[in-house]
Amino acid sequence: MAQLHILSPRGFRSAGVYAGIKSKQTPDVGLLICDVVAAAAAAFTTNKVFAAPVKIGREHVKNGKLRGVVMNSGNANACTGRQGEIDAIRMCQLAGTVAGCSPSDILPSSTGIIGHLLPMDKIERGIIEAGQYLGSSLEHAQLFGDAILTTDLKRKTAAVEFKVGKQTVTLAGVCKGSGMIGPRMAVPHATMLAYLTTDASISPVLLRKLLGAAVENSFNSVTVDDHASTNDTAAILASGLSGAKIDSPKAVKAFAAALNEVCQSLAYQIAADGEGATKVIAISVEKAKSEADARLIARAIANSPLVKCAMHGNDPNWGRIVSAAGLTAAAFVPEKAALTLQGTMVFAKGQPVVFDAAAVSKSLEVAEVKIVLNCGIGKAAAKCWTCDLSREYITINADYHT
Amino acid sequence: MAQLHILSPRGFRSAGVYAGIKSKQTPDVGLLICDVVAAAAAAFTTNKVFAAPVKIGREHVKNGKLRGVVMNSGNANACTGRQGEIDAIRMCQLAGTVAGCSPSDILPSSTGIIGHLLPMDKIERGIIEAGQYLGSSLEHAQLFGDAILTTDLKRKTAAVEFKVGKQTVTLAGVCKGSGMIGPRMAVPHATMLAYLTTDASISPVLLRKLLGAAVENSFNSVTVDDHASTNDTAAILASGLSGAKIDSPKAVKAFAAALNEVCQSLAYQIAADGEGATKVIAISVEKAKSEADARLIARAIANSPLVKCAMHGNDPNWGRIVSAAGLTAAAFVPEKAALTLQGTMVFAKGQPVVFDAAAVSKSLEVAEVKIVLNCGIGKAAAKCWTCDLSREYITINADYHT
Repeated sequence: MAQLHILSPRGFRSAGVYAGIKSKQTPDVGLLICDVVAAAAAAFTTNKVFAAPVKIGREHVKNGKLRGVVMNSGNANACTGRQGEIDAIRMCQLAGTVAGCSPSDILPSSTGIIGHLLPMDKIERGIIEAGQYLGSSLEHAQLFGDAILTTDLKRKTAAVEFKVGKQTVTLAGVCKGSGMIGPRMAVPHATMLAYLTTDASISPVLLRKLLGAAVENSFNSVTVDDHASTNDTAAILASGLSGAKIDSPKAVKAFAAALNEVCQSLAYQIAADGEGATKVIAISVEKAKSEADARLIARAIANSPLVKCAMHGNDPNWGRIVSAAGLTAAAFVPEKAALTLQGTMVFAKGQPVVFDAAAVSKSLEVAEVKIVLNCGIGKAAAKCWTCDLSREYITINADYHT
Repeated sequence: MAQLHILSPRGFRSAGVYAGIKSKQTPDVGLLICDVVAAAAAAFTTNKVFAAPVKIGREHVKNGKLRGVVMNSGNANACTGRQGEIDAIRMCQLAGTVAGCSPSDILPSSTGIIGHLLPMDKIERGIIEAGQYLGSSLEHAQLFGDAILTTDLKRKTAAVEFKVGKQTVTLAGVCKGSGMIGPRMAVPHATMLAYLTTDASISPVLLRKLLGAAVENSFNSVTVDDHASTNDTAAILASGLSGAKIDSPKAVKAFAAALNEVCQSLAYQIAADGEGATKVIAISVEKAKSEADARLIARAIANSPLVKCAMHGNDPNWGRIVSAAGLTAAAFVPEKAALTLQGTMVFAKGQPVVFDAAAVSKSLEVAEVKIVLNCGIGKAAAKCWTCDLSREYITINADYHT
């Protein structure tokens, strides 16, 4: 089977070009165009400081329809006032000219440094050039995927196929995110960027609902630094060109499962490529009093620099994990809780469990560390993904100058 | 004037001895005894995972009276179940024998690794030995001050004298804290430890009220890693031996001012000695909608690893600060806000302000960086102190093994 990518769903073309915005010579302007009017939904950051493209994007996706996405990396167009909005609209105008649609059918996105006006001469030339290079090959998908990256070391993609009756539906996604990652996105409003494409035929209302649920268990469950960005955006465009209608309960279930799988794969890739990351820390909180409680606890553990450093150093210092679980507003009773590190129980019922520290330390030398906290007081569960905290993180964020 | 310390207030003696709990040979068991029954108040951690000495300490301070404090470093006696409680009580019994009082007149504290039973043979010998070395000299104060330290590089003390009528009152404190610092303490319930002594004559009820207020603007306003510990404790003992009664509005005001000054100085010293710290970051949020909002915003800025790394690297990347301000539940309107970095305005009314980046970067090469965010939407203010995030932080927390 050929490799699936964001242009595998029928009806999509993309391009990525280097317009001179980023200091390193890799694509920094991207276009993703749907040949037909796509049903669309998007989730945006809930940060009260939101970028101009987020403001414009919220308006453009409101009617549940889009023809495409225009984006740039290297500059977030955030904290740029009224000129920032004018620039975001100009990006949509140029992309609209390429797609042959109204500017309001285009979703704009930007990612990069906050507080600088976009270099519009470069952006304009970039969008026009990208319009000339649109295509639907794997290479085109990869150039778009590269255009959205900033401090990311790896391109992040995921895709699945599933059947609705006899028809094959493809759902694919690409995303970026390495630092300033602690999304709390809300539909209709998510510096991670994620773009999803599908050729399913689905109503905007249903698409919006399913995206909201998928975002909660994926992008909103990943954290690198707990810093919800000014620009976080997750958007999905459904061309409908597979002919498969997502209207039966069975089809909805299959679509939701595909959407969850793609979003979770992308979110996981963000944690794995977190700034300075050497490993993923996968936290499962089980038997919590409520799902909200489980999420709060999982996120508190994921955000503790003490936990992240211990995991970096392969140190089974579980007291840091249990104490992080206790510091939120969530119900937590240590006497009822149990904690396993890579499958080894280290704490149960308020008391330490004797374990082989050297063996557990050895078991932490892996690409993914599994922390499972059983709260023992309910039935709710949640997962959260993060990465360890290394010296490289400091190098990336302190030595890099604006 | 002679140097003031925690034994300057009349009626206090202390000792610190090395009992072999810590790996490095510095005092690890401390005793602080008041010659008379002291009015007392204490604030303890609000973490749902609280150590055995916190549980016992809450009970012992409930009646507003104490004769002393017994403590050890190197082991937190947290997550140690029923045996942990028995051990904390035993510490009080031994200290009570020294002081000639009931065990319930002693406040126990522990700090160090979580999840290990106390080495009671060492602790018992240590307390008995400390009892033989009690004294009220500067050296005795320093040995107690050393006994409470763990990863701290410096001893932290503060003291003031003030007049009530013709009488001179002394109020002094000592504290520890370098990592696992993000206290949220509540009276009557605060791994920072702080012990305050005074010879003022004050009722336990008033002492408790004033301690609560002072803790909020000092220890609860400092964060290194936002990780509220299992053992945080701030306690004050008032011997009354100055004869100065804190019962007039003027005396209360003077006492409260002294208490705030000592607590804030101690909290500041914790930020300055935060794990891996090379500088203090002092954050002032002004003109916020409410004090709670101001606190939320100040703490969000202080806890952002992106902000802490930028300050470490002397990078005036103010977008990280403004975006951190927007991600809390607090009211924040970027169009009304203004931000200054070391006195230079970098952002105002939703837009960047042109500034000399090289000069501002140079201005960040100081022992204390001042960040002032004017929200422009209210009258409330709050301050928060933190430190920068360095490679040394990772070394301390990842390379150190339990």
